[in-house]
Amino acid sequence: MKRIVVVGGVAGGMSAAARLRRLDESASIVVLEKGGDVSFANCGLPYHVGDEIVQRSKLLLHTPETLKSSLDLDVRTHHEVLSIDRGARTVEVRDHSRARTYTEPYDALVLATGAEPVVPPLPGVDRPEVRTLRTVPDADALRSMLDEGASRAVVIGAGFIGLETVEAFRHRGLDVALVELAPQVLPAIDAEMAKLVEDELRAHAVDVRTGVGLAAIEDTATSHAVDVVLSDGSRLPADIVLLGVGVRPATRLAREAGLELSPAGAVVVTPQQLTSDPRIWAVGDAIQVHDFVTGAPGVVPLAGPANRQGRVAADAIMGRENASRPVMGTAIVRVFGLTAAVTGPTSRRLTAAGVEHHVVHLQPNDHASYYPGAEKVHLAVLFSPDGKLLGAQAVGRSGVDKRIDVLATALRAGFDVDDLAELELAYAPPFGSAKDPVNMAAFIAQNVLDGTLALWSAHDVDSFLDGSVLLLDVRSRGEYRRDHLPGAVNVPHTELRERIDEVLELADGRPVRAVCESGFRSYLAHRILGAHGVDSASLDGGMSTLRAARPDVALVVESPQAVTP
Amino acid sequence: MKRIVVVGGVAGGMSAAARLRRLDESASIVVLEKGGDVSFANCGLPYHVGDEIVQRSKLLLHTPETLKSSLDLDVRTHHEVLSIDRGARTVEVRDHSRARTYTEPYDALVLATGAEPVVPPLPGVDRPEVRTLRTVPDADALRSMLDEGASRAVVIGAGFIGLETVEAFRHRGLDVALVELAPQVLPAIDAEMAKLVEDELRAHAVDVRTGVGLAAIEDTATSHAVDVVLSDGSRLPADIVLLGVGVRPATRLAREAGLELSPAGAVVVTPQQLTSDPRIWAVGDAIQVHDFVTGAPGVVPLAGPANRQGRVAADAIMGRENASRPVMGTAIVRVFGLTAAVTGPTSRRLTAAGVEHHVVHLQPNDHASYYPGAEKVHLAVLFSPDGKLLGAQAVGRSGVDKRIDVLATALRAGFDVDDLAELELAYAPPFGSAKDPVNMAAFIAQNVLDGTLALWSAHDVDSFLDGSVLLLDVRSRGEYRRDHLPGAVNVPHTELRERIDEVLELADGRPVRAVCESGFRSYLAHRILGAHGVDSASLDGGMSTLRAARPDVALVVESPQAVTP
Repeated sequence: MKRIVVVGGVAGGMSAAARLRRLDESASIVVLEKGGDVSFANCGLPYHVGDEIVQRSKLLLHTPETLKSSLDLDVRTHHEVLSIDRGARTVEVRDHSRARTYTEPYDALVLATGAEPVVPPLPGVDRPEVRTLRTVPDADALRSMLDEGASRAVVIGAGFIGLETVEAFRHRGLDVALVELAPQVLPAIDAEMAKLVEDELRAHAVDVRTGVGLAAIEDTATSHAVDVVLSDGSRLPADIVLLGVGVRPATRLAREAGLELSPAGAVVVTPQQLTSDPRIWAVGDAIQVHDFVTGAPGVVPLAGPANRQGRVAADAIMGRENASRPVMGTAIVRVFGLTAAVTGPTSRRLTAAGVEHHVVHLQPNDHASYYPGAEKVHLAVLFSPDGKLLGAQAVGRSGVDKRIDVLATALRAGFDVDDLAELELAYAPPFGSAKDPVNMAAFIAQNVLDGTLALWSAHDVDSFLDGSVLLLDVRSRGEYRRDHLPGAVNVPHTELRERIDEVLELADGRPVRAVCESGFRSYLAHRILGAHGVDSASLDGGMSTLRAARPDVALVVESPQAVTP
Repeated sequence: MKRIVVVGGVAGGMSAAARLRRLDESASIVVLEKGGDVSFANCGLPYHVGDEIVQRSKLLLHTPETLKSSLDLDVRTHHEVLSIDRGARTVEVRDHSRARTYTEPYDALVLATGAEPVVPPLPGVDRPEVRTLRTVPDADALRSMLDEGASRAVVIGAGFIGLETVEAFRHRGLDVALVELAPQVLPAIDAEMAKLVEDELRAHAVDVRTGVGLAAIEDTATSHAVDVVLSDGSRLPADIVLLGVGVRPATRLAREAGLELSPAGAVVVTPQQLTSDPRIWAVGDAIQVHDFVTGAPGVVPLAGPANRQGRVAADAIMGRENASRPVMGTAIVRVFGLTAAVTGPTSRRLTAAGVEHHVVHLQPNDHASYYPGAEKVHLAVLFSPDGKLLGAQAVGRSGVDKRIDVLATALRAGFDVDDLAELELAYAPPFGSAKDPVNMAAFIAQNVLDGTLALWSAHDVDSFLDGSVLLLDVRSRGEYRRDHLPGAVNVPHTELRERIDEVLELADGRPVRAVCESGFRSYLAHRILGAHGVDSASLDGGMSTLRAARPDVALVVESPQAVTP
């Protein structure tokens, strides 16, 4: 009989334990969990804080009792593993309930020790108003503070947990400020996409502060509990300070046991989840993974990979063939009415990794425009110079999760843009379009790669504001009046053919940089201009992307109401 | 200058024309459309009939005028092409508006003649109450009949158009009967999945008649307009009879011009959409395509492929490399609150084609069960004995389109179940689960293929009702009391280990066939039984699938209310 010990009873650890039992009815499987809960819904915590998930019991998917009766698992909560004796193949366990320490032997050991929230060593972070959100007791504490009348919250960190907690606090009626050291919210996506999320936060009265860090938490003489002091000297009053600045692998056990760790301190494992010890496997937030696209090592604390790694570790322990794959970092977050999602690296990360790539932006509708309720999906698709899909991001009110899941599947498949163009997705008016947003993105990418379409980027707009090019805005007069680039000349695309001589005269030999709302009409204009021998290019993603990518550019507004296309 | 003539101004034809212009500013592009509308939203017609799309103008995405100003297309409506002179490279055109006939020359000809509704040659089908729905005037006529007080409709054919029109009629308050010759509704999916759609139709007071055909439309002496006489002799009163029994390729032109047609009468084309004439391309519902999985030739009248084929034809005409791919038949339909979708062939079609395959059924939630509003997605996934994905079907109230699009992408990628198991999809509680339904399906498939799980199918239930096996229902007592198979013994899975001797005694050497609600608990039971040397198997998809697959099996009901798991 095999004696298996699993350290950590959530996500990866519990997946491993459950699969182990299903594969071997006779094994002894002991799950040692430091906390009081196993298999709890950690991703549901912000929604419990926000009262969307009202019942606390909903978060507790299993208990030691149900796991015993269903899977014959020996689950011990409040049991902390103090150390591993690799030679003796034992772990030393502290049973905090009974205040005793004992030794548990193993034939196979699974480390699923997870990650712990980063708490920066700043003055005042040990105050009781300063909280993290990682466990059910963390959520309990926050709910108590809300029930006791907390009315102002400052959330530090605009990543996934930070954003979800911001929304939860707003649902509960608090005044919320969000502080992010990076120059944008949601650093998991590129800046021009994140700007849409920032706008949504502001529309829900969140005080968003980017490019500024936490300096200290200080006492205050006024009615609120603390002052949050930022690196720019500003002070924000708060009854609650939520730290959401990230997590680090919880690998003390592994380190002290002499297992190989990455320079970043994560446990190094094989695709079978085996550590440097042939009897010890590791899964989840504590391990090093490799990026599917760049191959770069890193830590990706996501529930999906953790659960699948648990399954792979169980298979490996039972001598079955299975292997984890590199991680793509597919992730999603709801921020009020908006959803933001990503698969694969961002453009920023690709650039940092020296990976040459193109990005195209588009804003197709989530379903047929003529069917009620169509919403724009802001899509950014990244691909290599030889057409291979490298990643994608989407932000919008509907259909975002679907497109990112399709693109995540395509990314895993190694698709190029030709494959994407020919993807056959399900179409009926309530669900999509005959040419799905994913197809549309691929069409644009194909056009870019074969030279049918030349793009210019909102990032390059500065060099075009000096008169060196003719900025040609081919939208309707109403759209142009609402906002346009300084110096841009308006010729609606429907008039371009008949007014081409006028445009050529205006250009006077200068290149033409065409602009429309989304990039489609300027593409048509680009084709017409090209046929007349003009050096032209179309603004990637149109004004819609430019507004988000370059909020610093002062647009000319003639009539704020004029919008009829 | 190239002279290009496109016959047919919707979907494929208009996609070709638009792309041709974008690729060649100087070409002469003439679009000849027999009807009065071009580029109209044919997939939106049922929703206009049902008043979900209220404004008729929403259906008219473009007009000859907008296509002229935007794309410099010469679009001629009410222009019917009478014949093709391949030698002279001309078409003879009847201009119905001006009642004149003329000849139009071409260098390249694109046939996008579409399909026409099948009207079976039965008595009375020429009556004015008998309608089809393929064009905007068809929708106008139906709306007029509704506005004039039609109150009873009979829809013949339970395919996509039939189902959408049933819903539209119900939205408008009509009494609706649905008649389908096949033994099930929605023959595009397998029977046990279609049963869920049938239940939804009945829940919305639709009189569903399957396995019966239309015999005649007859006069009636009563207040309603006609009697619909069915093949079983029954009569249904109706003010409107909607024929939705399918379409056939409209290929008279191609046939008379001597172009190669398939035995089914569709135009034979290369992957570049070229017909047997080097100057004539064809796209859309009129052409023969090949099935991605079986390779079988067929006709697939879907908007997505038609649009992409138009693009490919344009590229080919302009000398660009591009190729259409075999068609997977990805399709989706909303039926009241339910969505049904499919990609790849059904099990029925695979069997007919002699393709050996497995099917697994499951009903995971569309998103995390602990987050409000979770709905079951009924999923059927088909795969080959060597693990390759062959197709999938999904039915449910939420998240159906996403899963089928992911599976369609995976199918196109040639994924096997190991690839599916490791798919990394976007997870947050409102959108999915850490183990997505697609992952779950793959886990089950892996277990089947490596022998960890043995399944038995609801189709085989008859041979198990005779006492030759022990039917072991491992659900809770409450679930068992609500309904169970005749002769099934109830031992909740949580009690199975402690009551194993009792079960072995009951089995008395017979095989055990385990049953639960969805197939997961019976899988756990199967593993326990297997460890005790018992020949056991788990019911694929559980009672949930059995009820749909075998509505003819009389279940034992002890207490209709008892359901607590």
